[in-house]
Formats: sequence, C-alpha cells, structure tokens
Amino acid sequence: MKLSEKAYQLIKEKIITLELRPLSVINERELMEELGLGRTPIREALYKLAHEDLVIIVPRRGMFVADISITDLLKLFELRVVLEGFCARLAAERRTEEQLAEADALLNELRNVSGDDYKALMDIDERLHKLMYEMSDNEFLIDILNRLYDHSLRLWYLTLDRLGNVRSSIEEHIGVMEAIKAGDGETAEKLIQQHIIEFQQKIKDAI
Amino acid sequence: MKLSEKAYQLIKEKIITLELRPLSVINERELMEELGLGRTPIREALYKLAHEDLVIIVPRRGMFVADISITDLLKLFELRVVLEGFCARLAAERRTEEQLAEADALLNELRNVSGDDYKALMDIDERLHKLMYEMSDNEFLIDILNRLYDHSLRLWYLTLDRLGNVRSSIEEHIGVMEAIKAGDGETAEKLIQQHIIEFQQKIKDAI
Repeated sequence: MKLSEKAYQLIKEKIITLELRPLSVINERELMEELGLGRTPIREALYKLAHEDLVIIVPRRGMFVADISITDLLKLFELRVVLEGFCARLAAERRTEEQLAEADALLNELRNVSGDDYKALMDIDERLHKLMYEMSDNEFLIDILNRLYDHSLRLWYLTLDRLGNVRSSIEEHIGVMEAIKAGDGETAEKLIQQHIIEFQQKIKDAI
Repeated sequence: MKLSEKAYQLIKEKIITLELRPLSVINERELMEELGLGRTPIREALYKLAHEDLVIIVPRRGMFVADISITDLLKLFELRVVLEGFCARLAAERRTEEQLAEADALLNELRNVSGDDYKALMDIDERLHKLMYEMSDNEFLIDILNRLYDHSLRLWYLTLDRLGNVRSSIEEHIGVMEAIKAGDGETAEKLIQQHIIEFQQKIKDAI
C-alpha cells in the first residue's frame, strides 16, 4: 500500500471513530510521530480527507476535523435512501456467485456475534453494505456510496452509547441479500431503504 | 481564489475539453510554465483531479489523463438518470424565488443562442443543470452531480462534431424548470430523466 493511502486509512479511522473529535485542530507533526510517517503522505492524506469533507482546510489557519451537523445528517440519509435503493436493484441483476457466497459467510458470522458487541455488529453492517455496493458493478456508484457510508458511520459513533439494540437492524440485511440472490431487485430496494430509514430514526432519537 | 483552486479549474477545463487528450502524459513543468503557477498548487490540483478520476497517478511512472471507456459511459449515465431525477424532485420542493428568476434568465439566454453555436448551447446546458443541483439544497448531492456532469461533458466533447442538432435536447430544460416552478416534482423528475436518456443516446450513436 502507498504510504499516503496508509495515512489516509489511519487518519480516516481516527476521524470516523471520533478519536479525533469534530472541530479539533489537526496537528500534522503529532500525526507524523504517532503514525511514523513523513510529512508528504500525511499531507496527501489530509487533502484527500478534505476533499471528502471530513477535514476542513483554512488557509493560513490550519486544518480542522469537520463538524457534524444535524442538517448534514438529514441530507446524508435522504441521499443514501435513494442510492442504496438503486444499488440494491443493480445488485440483484449483476451479483456474481462468488459475491453471494461472501454474503452467506457474512450473514453466518452475524448469527454468531453477541448482541452487545456493537463494534463487531457495526463491522459486519459495513462489510454487508460494501459488498452490496460491489455487486452493483458501477464504480461511480461504489465510490459515492463508500464515502457516504463513512460519513454515516461517524454519526453512528457519535450516538453509540445511546443507540440501544442494533442487532435487529443489522439482521435486516438477511432479507436484502435473499432478495438480491433471488434476483428480485424491487424487494431488495424496498428492504434496504427501510433499513436506512429505520437506522436514521434510531440515530435521530439518540441525538 | 486559492492558487490550487485556480490550477484545478484550468487543468480540469483542459481535460474536459480534450485539449489534454485521454491517456496523454501530464507534464508538471509544462503546466507550471503555461499557467504561470508554482509546483505546489499544480500538484494539489492534480491530486484533486486524480481523486475525481480525471487523472491517473502511477507511482514512479508519472501522471496521465484518464482514459474514457464505453463502459464508463454506460455506468455514468445509469447513475445520472437516478440522481438527476431525485435532484429534480428535491428542487421542486426547495427552490427559492431567486433561483427561479435565475432559471428564467438562463432560458431567455437559450432562446437567443444560434442553433449551431455548440459551445454556447453546452454552456447553458451546464448552467441549467448546475442551477437545478443548487435548488436541491443538498450539498452531498450537489457535489456528486457536479462531478458526474464534468465527466459527461468530457464525453460530449469527444463526440462534438458528430452530435448533430443538440438545441432541441437543451430546450427540454424549459419543461423541467416549468415543473420545478409549479412544485411538480414527479413531472420534473420524468422530464430530466428523459433528457439524460436522450442525450446519452445521441452520444452513443455518435461514437
């Protein structure tokens, strides 16, 4: 992996998990020491994150972690409802046998995760969404949905301790994947949209 | 404007209009001389363009203008159909009086453009689309659609001399804006989708 890609992944993780809090100042030197990377890869990573609206660059003032606003939340989810729905429809047409096998493996993993292991549950949710994105076989869409998912994940971390039981939400992926497997794009679309809307409601209730 | 933003706009223009041909090598030094800008803003601009898939960075080999593939064209348009449709629906709900006045001015401008002035027609098409994006009042969506539009514009430049009459296509925006003005999201969605599909067909026929 390129060093800037490594820096990007590590810093993004810190921002999404709120280890780097919204609005906090980003200290390049600290990141260089902590991640053991040079100035160039760190800076490239920060530019990329700025481009994804996770970092704000203020000329002559420095860099900050982007804030999370309620307005953003609503705009993010209204868009995800449409795009994840469209993605599910494409997935039902284009998924490969290999991808379906991967989905089965993930859903099996889900059955064995304890209901209070939030981190593991969220990890499976992420892998299920991202697998569905890949199934769409549309790189433009995959790229957009991956980014929007990262933003949503950050909101999830913000409300983590107040979300309550998320296991049942994540189990909704079982129905989505069954519909995709059956080639039933309409049902897959409806179910993933319900999943996004319900999850958004959980986050709104927890804020 | 920041220097890197200026470099970004100028280089993007060169790529979209095919002055920089697909797959050609990008020469940083030449760009620095031609644009009268330093290495840092040029490099920042190129990273941003790489992030938007208009430039390809190959470690230890250099930078290239991204290729244009037929597969990309199909994937780009299938996504734009969905997103522009969704955008039109939001626009019908959220547009401001000021934006509607701007739309009227643009449509008046369109009436006075000669049918064989492709450059002026395309410029109005771009401003009409981008105005509709702004009307959606969803920054995530605006950002995505602006990028997808740029990619489409590059395809249009590729087929420019074989597209035939595009005036009637662009006049389809009149109906879209009327529906948006009337708050009729369903009609606006249907009309903008027809516009995208028809334009895609023109480009496919011309390739």
